Amino acid sequence: MRAVQVVGYGQHPRMADVPEPEVTGPYDVIVKIGGAGVCRTDLHILEGQWADKSGVSLPYTIGHENAGWVDAVGSAVTNVAEGDKVIVHPLITCGLCPACRTGDDVHCEQSLFPGIDTAGGYAEYLKTSARSVVKIDDSLEPSDVAALADAGLTAYHAAAKAAGRLRPGTRCVIIGAGGLGHIGVQVLKALTAAELIVVDRNPDAVELAVSIGADHGIVANGGQVEEVLELTGGQGAETVVDFVGEGGATRDGVRMLRRAGDYHVVGYGENIDVPTIDIISAEINFIGNLVGSYTDLCELMVLAAQGRVRLHTTTYPLDRFQDALDDLDAGRIRGRAILVP
Amino acid sequence: MRAVQVVGYGQHPRMADVPEPEVTGPYDVIVKIGGAGVCRTDLHILEGQWADKSGVSLPYTIGHENAGWVDAVGSAVTNVAEGDKVIVHPLITCGLCPACRTGDDVHCEQSLFPGIDTAGGYAEYLKTSARSVVKIDDSLEPSDVAALADAGLTAYHAAAKAAGRLRPGTRCVIIGAGGLGHIGVQVLKALTAAELIVVDRNPDAVELAVSIGADHGIVANGGQVEEVLELTGGQGAETVVDFVGEGGATRDGVRMLRRAGDYHVVGYGENIDVPTIDIISAEINFIGNLVGSYTDLCELMVLAAQGRVRLHTTTYPLDRFQDALDDLDAGRIRGRAILVP
Amino acid sequence: MRAVQVVGYGQHPRMADVPEPEVTGPYDVIVKIGGAGVCRTDLHILEGQWADKSGVSLPYTIGHENAGWVDAVGSAVTNVAEGDKVIVHPLITCGLCPACRTGDDVHCEQSLFPGIDTAGGYAEYLKTSARSVVKIDDSLEPSDVAALADAGLTAYHAAAKAAGRLRPGTRCVIIGAGGLGHIGVQVLKALTAAELIVVDRNPDAVELAVSIGADHGIVANGGQVEEVLELTGGQGAETVVDFVGEGGATRDGVRMLRRAGDYHVVGYGENIDVPTIDIISAEINFIGNLVGSYTDLCELMVLAAQGRVRLHTTTYPLDRFQDALDDLDAGRIRGRAILVP
Amino acid sequence: MRAVQVVGYGQHPRMADVPEPEVTGPYDVIVKIGGAGVCRTDLHILEGQWADKSGVSLPYTIGHENAGWVDAVGSAVTNVAEGDKVIVHPLITCGLCPACRTGDDVHCEQSLFPGIDTAGGYAEYLKTSARSVVKIDDSLEPSDVAALADAGLTAYHAAAKAAGRLRPGTRCVIIGAGGLGHIGVQVLKALTAAELIVVDRNPDAVELAVSIGADHGIVANGGQVEEVLELTGGQGAETVVDFVGEGGATRDGVRMLRRAGDYHVVGYGENIDVPTIDIISAEINFIGNLVGSYTDLCELMVLAAQGRVRLHTTTYPLDRFQDALDDLDAGRIRGRAILVP
Repeated sequence: MRAVQVVGYGQHPRMADVPEPEVTGPYDVIVKIGGAGVCRTDLHILEGQWADKSGVSLPYTIGHENAGWVDAVGSAVTNVAEGDKVIVHPLITCGLCPACRTGDDVHCEQSLFPGIDTAGGYAEYLKTSARSVVKIDDSLEPSDVAALADAGLTAYHAAAKAAGRLRPGTRCVIIGAGGLGHIGVQVLKALTAAELIVVDRNPDAVELAVSIGADHGIVANGGQVEEVLELTGGQGAETVVDFVGEGGATRDGVRMLRRAGDYHVVGYGENIDVPTIDIISAEINFIGNLVGSYTDLCELMVLAAQGRVRLHTTTYPLDRFQDALDDLDAGRIRGRAILVP
Repeated sequence: MRAVQVVGYGQHPRMADVPEPEVTGPYDVIVKIGGAGVCRTDLHILEGQWADKSGVSLPYTIGHENAGWVDAVGSAVTNVAEGDKVIVHPLITCGLCPACRTGDDVHCEQSLFPGIDTAGGYAEYLKTSARSVVKIDDSLEPSDVAALADAGLTAYHAAAKAAGRLRPGTRCVIIGAGGLGHIGVQVLKALTAAELIVVDRNPDAVELAVSIGADHGIVANGGQVEEVLELTGGQGAETVVDFVGEGGATRDGVRMLRRAGDYHVVGYGENIDVPTIDIISAEINFIGNLVGSYTDLCELMVLAAQGRVRLHTTTYPLDRFQDALDDLDAGRIRGRAILVP
Repeated sequence: MRAVQVVGYGQHPRMADVPEPEVTGPYDVIVKIGGAGVCRTDLHILEGQWADKSGVSLPYTIGHENAGWVDAVGSAVTNVAEGDKVIVHPLITCGLCPACRTGDDVHCEQSLFPGIDTAGGYAEYLKTSARSVVKIDDSLEPSDVAALADAGLTAYHAAAKAAGRLRPGTRCVIIGAGGLGHIGVQVLKALTAAELIVVDRNPDAVELAVSIGADHGIVANGGQVEEVLELTGGQGAETVVDFVGEGGATRDGVRMLRRAGDYHVVGYGENIDVPTIDIISAEINFIGNLVGSYTDLCELMVLAAQGRVRLHTTTYPLDRFQDALDDLDAGRIRGRAILVP
Repeated sequence: MRAVQVVGYGQHPRMADVPEPEVTGPYDVIVKIGGAGVCRTDLHILEGQWADKSGVSLPYTIGHENAGWVDAVGSAVTNVAEGDKVIVHPLITCGLCPACRTGDDVHCEQSLFPGIDTAGGYAEYLKTSARSVVKIDDSLEPSDVAALADAGLTAYHAAAKAAGRLRPGTRCVIIGAGGLGHIGVQVLKALTAAELIVVDRNPDAVELAVSIGADHGIVANGGQVEEVLELTGGQGAETVVDFVGEGGATRDGVRMLRRAGDYHVVGYGENIDVPTIDIISAEINFIGNLVGSYTDLCELMVLAAQGRVRLHTTTYPLDRFQDALDDLDAGRIRGRAILVP
C-alpha cells in the first residue's frame, strides 16, 4: 500500500510502497484510512524534534489523527466489526496497568503512539487496537472528524474537566481561539452555562469564537488583562483554560484568575513561574491537561454527531501530502488539513 | 485589661492597659483568653513586614491563634453561650457573600483578621464573632489547642484536601516536618491509609514524624529525590504536600511527583517555576492551600478531642511575652509557645 | 397594609389590614412584594393539611414564593440595599449551624418558612432576612420570577444535582412535565449535553417539553417503559428525575433505569417499594431532593436572566386572590398564577 | 485434576476427576488454587436457587472466592507471571465495553462469573483472565485472603464508597457485624476518622466489632433505634451501611439516618419501602452496592498486607468439602471456611 514515510530528519517525507498491516494479535484492528489530520507536530517530527523522545527507527509512517473504516479485526475483538466507521484514539494502551484499570488510559504504563513511535495513518491502512477505536455516527464522515482524534480530544479533555466547577454565574476565560481553543469553546458551550470570554491576538479568531458561542471576545493587544477584570467585576474569572502557554500567556492568564480559581494548562512553551505566596494567598490551582481518554473520545464523538462540535477542514489527496505540509507551514490553512487516501 | 501591643515597627511590643472589648453587635462574642499562640508571623509583624498589607494603625494588640472561654455574647448568638470553652477561627467573616454562602468562608469578600488588622489575643479578652468560635471538647484545654487555630488549621486544610484522592496503596510525600508538617502527618494518618513519606533537613524532626505515624522518614541531605523515587518504584508519589516552599523544596518536590499527581503548595518563599511542557506531559496539578474554613476547624477539633492530633506546647505567662518572642526567634522552642493571661 | 390571611381551615382566606412589618434585627430585610406565586401548597394549607406540621397560629398571612423590591434593611445587611430588585429564598436560615456553615442551608437546624409557619407574601410587604434575598437582573421583573422561588428552585436543585453525572452520550428521563418538570427540562438543557426523554400523561405537556428542548417526548399511556427502553438500547437511562412520585410513577421509573443509575425523587405521594436484591444487583441509587439552597437560587436567577429558564405566568391583582386560588383548584391556569399587590 | 462439582440441585456435590484447564486465549491465566472460600451462596447454588439465573449446565465446578499461584499465562499477559501469588477477582470482564473503560468493571456488559456460571475454584486449578488477578504481598497466604475475593470485596466497596463523605465528627452506623460487616468495620476504621456504631442481634458479634475498632456496639434487642438516636444527639447518623437488608433491618435503619444522610444497601432480602415524602423532606439517599471493582480488590489487598483488614478462617482439605458445607450450614464456623487442595 501507499504510505508517507519519514526517511530522514530535515528532509521531506517520501511516498513509499509498504506491506499492508495485518492482524496478528487477538485485539488488533486494521483501519482503512478515511482521513488523516495534518498536524503541526508532524512538521516538528520532520525537523527531528521528536527523534530522541520517540526513539523510532526510520523510515516509518507518520500521521496520528486518524479515522476510517474497520477493515479486519482480531479474534477477541467485540466492540467493532468489519465495515464500522471509526475514529482512532491516538494511543494503543495495555488495558492491564493500574491507570488503564481506572479509565485513565492516557497514563498507561506501556502505551504506543502510532504516527510518533510506530506506523501511523498517512497511509491506506493503519494497525491499531480494539481499545483504540470508537464507532462514529452514520452522519459523520471520517475525513470530517479525523482531526478531532488528537487536537480535538485534548481540547475536549481540558474543557470537560474545567466544566466540572463552572456553575451558572461563573466565568471561564479561554486563552487562544486557534485549533484547540475553537473546539474548547464549543465544548464549554455544550457542557456549561458559564460565561465564556475568549482572548486571542488574532481578531479573526476572536470573531469566529464569538460566532460559535463565546459570550465575549477580547483581542489581546495589551489591554486584555484589564478587559477581563472589567468583565468580571474586578475579581477575575473562576477558571482560565490556556490553550497557548507561551509568549507571556501564562503571566497574563494568572492575572485574569479569581481567588480560589483553576488555571488549566493546555498549550505549552514557556514556564509557569509564580511566587508560592501568590498561589497560597489566593489559593489558586494549576491543572495540567494531556490528551483525553478513550471515554473522552466517545463523548466528543457524541457532541460531533449532535452538531455541537464542528471543525473546518480542507482535504488533500494522500499523494499531495507535501502540499498539505507546505500549506500548514506557511499558514495557508483555515481549520485543519486532512489527507484522504 | 492587659494587652501586648505593637507600638512601632522594629521595636519590642509593649504591655498596655486597654479597655476590655464589649459586645456592640448582635453576633459579637467576647472570649476570655486561655491561650494565645506565639507565631513566626508575630515576629514578622513586629519587623514591619505586614505594615502595608494589613494597613493597621498602631498601637494595636497582636495574637491570631486564640482559645479560651466565652465571656459575653450578642443578642443573636445561638451557637455558643457564656462559659463555653472555645477555639477561635482566625477570620471574622461576613456570612453573606457568595464564598461564605458555600462554606468557603476563607475567601469571604470582607473579612477581618484579629491580631493582623484588628485587635488580637495577646490580651485578657478578645472580641470576635459567633461565626468564628468553635466549642471544644471538655477534655481539651484552651492553652493546649490555641496553636491549632491558625498553623494547625492550615495544615489540616491541606492534608484533608490531599486525602481526598489518597486511596490505599497510594503514597504521599510530606515535605517539612516542623510545626505544620507535624500536624499534617497526624491528619493524613487519621484520614487515609496512604503510605506517608516525610522529608526534612532536620533528623530530629524526621524521627519525630516517624514516631507519630509516618511510614518512612528521609533526611534531606542531597539524596532525598532519589530516596523517594526508590520508595515509589521509580515513579514518584501520587501526592506531595509541601509545607516548606522555599530553599529549593519545590524543585525537588516536583521531581518526587508521579504522573497525574497533585502537588499541594502550603509553605511559601520561592517561586513555582516549571515548564508548561512538563505540566502537561505528566499532567500534574499544583494546588494552592490557604488556612482552613470554619468547618475545617470543627473537624480538626474532633481529631484533637480523639487524641489523633497533638501538639507539644510551652506556656508562658502573658507578662513574659518578650521571653516567648525571644525564645521563638532564637529557635529555643520545641513545638509552640503559648501565652497564658 | 393589605394581607391575605388564613383565618380558619376549610375556609376561604380573608383580606385583612395588618401592620406593615418593620426592621427589628440587624439582618432583617423588608421586601415590597412585586409578585407572589399561588401554589398548590396554598390550597393544602387552607384545607388544614399543614396545620399540625407547621404549628402556626391563625390568623396568618400565606404566600411562600415571593419577589419584589427591598424596602428597608437592618444595620448589618451588606448584600442588598433599598430599591434592589430581589427574589426571596423560601427559608430564613440561621447561618450558624453546621449545615448553614457548609452552604447546605436547606438543612438549617432552626429555619423559618414564611407563608408556612410565619407571615408570608400574599401582602404588600414581607419581612425576611439578608440571608434570603437574591438580587435579580435588571431584565427580570419580580412578578415573572416569583414562582421560581420555591417550585422552580426545587426543580433546579434536582436537575443540577442530576447533571453532575450526565456526560455526553448519557440519557436522562424526566417523569412529569408540569410546573417543576418544565423547569427541570430547561435546566438540564442548559447544564448538560445529555439526551432528555420526557414522559407525561398529558400530550400537551409532552409537546411543550419537546418545544423547549427535550429530545424525545413520550405520552404515558401504558407503553412508556417499553418506549424508554427502546430509546436506550434496552438498557434504560443513566438517570431518572421523577417529578411525579405517585400514581405508579416510581414503579415505572425504576424499570426505566439503567444499571448503576440514579433515580432522583422529587415528586411525592406513593412509596418507593423496591426489593433490596434489585437495588444491589443493579447497583442503583435513590436520591432525595428537597428545595434548593441560597446558592442554587442565585444560579437559577442567572439562568433566568440569560433567558434559559422561562415560566408562563398569569397575574392577578392581590385583591383577586380568591379567583387565583379557584382557578388553580379548577385547573384553569396555564403555568403559574401570580398575585400582584 | 480433582474438582468438586454440582451434579444435581438438591443433591450433595461430588468430587470428580476433570481435565486441568489450559491456556487457550492470549489473556488467559491458570491459577493453582491455594484456598477457596466456602460461601453461603454455594449452599444456595446447591439448593437450585441460582439455576435459572446462571443458566449453567451441570455438572460444573463451584467456588467463587479464590486465591493461589499463577500456573500459566497467555501470550498477552503482562501483569502477572508464573509463580506469582494472586487473589482472583470474582468476575471475568471484557475490558472493552463502556463500563470496563471507565474502571466500573462490575457493570461489564458481558462478564463471566466462575463458580456461578462457569467452572470455579473448588478444584486444583482455575482458569481466569489477566484482568482478574491481583498480586498479593509476600506476607499474605492465599488461604488467608481467599474469602476476601467476594464477600470481603463487597464490604470494601460499600465501606470505601461510604467513607467518601465521612469527615471527622460524622457518625456511621454499621448494621450487621457478621462476615461482611466485620470487614466493613475494619475498612471504615482504616479510611476514616468517623465514629463507628455497630448494631447486631448477636452480642458476640458486637463485642468482636468493638474489639476491632468500632467506637460503639449496640445489641439489637428492640431498643437499637433509640440507642443510635441517643448516641447521635437525637438526629441520627450521617451514614448507615446495612449489611443485613432483611428481618426489618431497613425499617430500623432508615430511622437511624440523619437528614441528608446516605443509606448504603448491601445485604438483601426484604424491600426498601419508604414514603417518597420522607425521602424528599429529609432529603436522604439510598445507595446500592454490588461487589467491588478490580481496583477495589487491589486496594483491599493493600489493607490486608498492612494488617488493617483481617479475617478469621478455618481451613479444610479439599476432600473434606462436604464437612465444610455442613459446618457452614449448621452455623459451626467462626469466620470463614476455606478449602485447600
